[in-house]
Amino acid sequence: MCQLLGMNCNVPTDICFSFAGFRSRGGLTAEHRDGWGIAFFEDLGCRIFIDTTSASHSPIAQTVHDYPIRSRNVIAHIRRATQGAVALQNTHPFCRELWGRYWIFAHNGDLKDLDLPPPRWYRAVGTTDSERAFCHMLDALRECLGDRAAPLDQCFNVLAERTALLSRHGVFNYMLSNGEALFAHCSTKLSTITRRAPFGAAHLVDRDVTVDFSGVTTPNDVVTVIATEPLTDNEQWNALRPGEILMFRDGETIATRSTTAAE
Amino acid sequence: MCQLLGMNCNVPTDICFSFAGFRSRGGLTAEHRDGWGIAFFEDLGCRIFIDTTSASHSPIAQTVHDYPIRSRNVIAHIRRATQGAVALQNTHPFCRELWGRYWIFAHNGDLKDLDLPPPRWYRAVGTTDSERAFCHMLDALRECLGDRAAPLDQCFNVLAERTALLSRHGVFNYMLSNGEALFAHCSTKLSTITRRAPFGAAHLVDRDVTVDFSGVTTPNDVVTVIATEPLTDNEQWNALRPGEILMFRDGETIATRSTTAAE
Repeated sequence: MCQLLGMNCNVPTDICFSFAGFRSRGGLTAEHRDGWGIAFFEDLGCRIFIDTTSASHSPIAQTVHDYPIRSRNVIAHIRRATQGAVALQNTHPFCRELWGRYWIFAHNGDLKDLDLPPPRWYRAVGTTDSERAFCHMLDALRECLGDRAAPLDQCFNVLAERTALLSRHGVFNYMLSNGEALFAHCSTKLSTITRRAPFGAAHLVDRDVTVDFSGVTTPNDVVTVIATEPLTDNEQWNALRPGEILMFRDGETIATRSTTAAE
Repeated sequence: MCQLLGMNCNVPTDICFSFAGFRSRGGLTAEHRDGWGIAFFEDLGCRIFIDTTSASHSPIAQTVHDYPIRSRNVIAHIRRATQGAVALQNTHPFCRELWGRYWIFAHNGDLKDLDLPPPRWYRAVGTTDSERAFCHMLDALRECLGDRAAPLDQCFNVLAERTALLSRHGVFNYMLSNGEALFAHCSTKLSTITRRAPFGAAHLVDRDVTVDFSGVTTPNDVVTVIATEPLTDNEQWNALRPGEILMFRDGETIATRSTTAAE
């Protein structure tokens, strides 16, 4: 399996602290050596760094760690290959354009016997179940909501419905963002934490590093971090329920639903 | 205006030497400070590094320079903004998926009064003429050649025809690749060089650096480099004619046409 890390906030924030702990799981504190990737939205633009070496040893991961990129929506992934060879085209996050925005997706899990209809707009380049599921969800958004950008609540409805169907095929923890909202689905394991004033100090699980957020934030900052497993050991993380899909914007949870009930 | 760099070869080759000279033009030896980007195909996968700082000072450009990524198709760009603000969404190269492959595009020039039909499949995210022209060409490929991958010669025909029409709007030097072939159009300025055995030494124009290719190649390697201006001062570069569009594969020119005659 793989591990996921996401961030959604109301001001551009760097993810260096969380990424420092997370990347250790790519080969040091956990066995996820088959590549890694991270996508940062900056305004409408998006940049993705991907590599097929382990996150803990990749020189590109070191640059990402050293170069604080400020973003309101970030999705990162470290891979332990289940379906699809270790190759760049199978490395998450994946990206497509829909309605004049980039959409970014990363998946932790394993979908079996995916018998999807032929893709209409979006086709997978690699051989993972993950990229096919992503393309299928974007096809569904365009099919159900048309050729112009739809309101977020309508997108959430379509995504929740498709997620329920796709989840029948196996484990489908994922994060998806269009740079405005971030959607997170917990199939088996996903935790979140929302940090806001008064900010305190946080200590990583995977490395002996502490940061005092009160020194690097303003009183209005709201920052939500989502991860497969909690990244800090002195804060209260919220474990999502299996079958829970959430939509975050500006660091706040703006919608939640059960995908098991949605069936 | 901007500057372009491309490479097409028959074996995965690193572009570190050419990139060392090219990035100097992003703020040191030339005034192209408004961002830069480089895309590498690796098998079907593709990774793009983009930054809005100058290529000569960007820490990401330093990582790209230090980390030899081997690729058969590379497109790089340094930007001096003409249309569109300095922002990540306006930074070349641009990427879209068509027929289950990534397509990458970078443009040097300025297209005025682009009155394009509404996009059908591909929409621009940023505000550049370049990205709109790219989306229009991909729309044309899909519109003219259908939903399944078409032979390269048919793609070349469609691209040559659309390029002729788009060129009426201004300067349209560009490079486009799907990871198999690289298409290059010379509107005003573009030079190429094809290196093959017996390989010799090359010396950069922009930095006092020499490499002896005979020590880093095999006798069967064929490597074509394409750039706005020649990157070396001791080799014979071939200046393309204005209105010339070429298709490269495995380092060789496999098609050429005049886009002025194509009108």
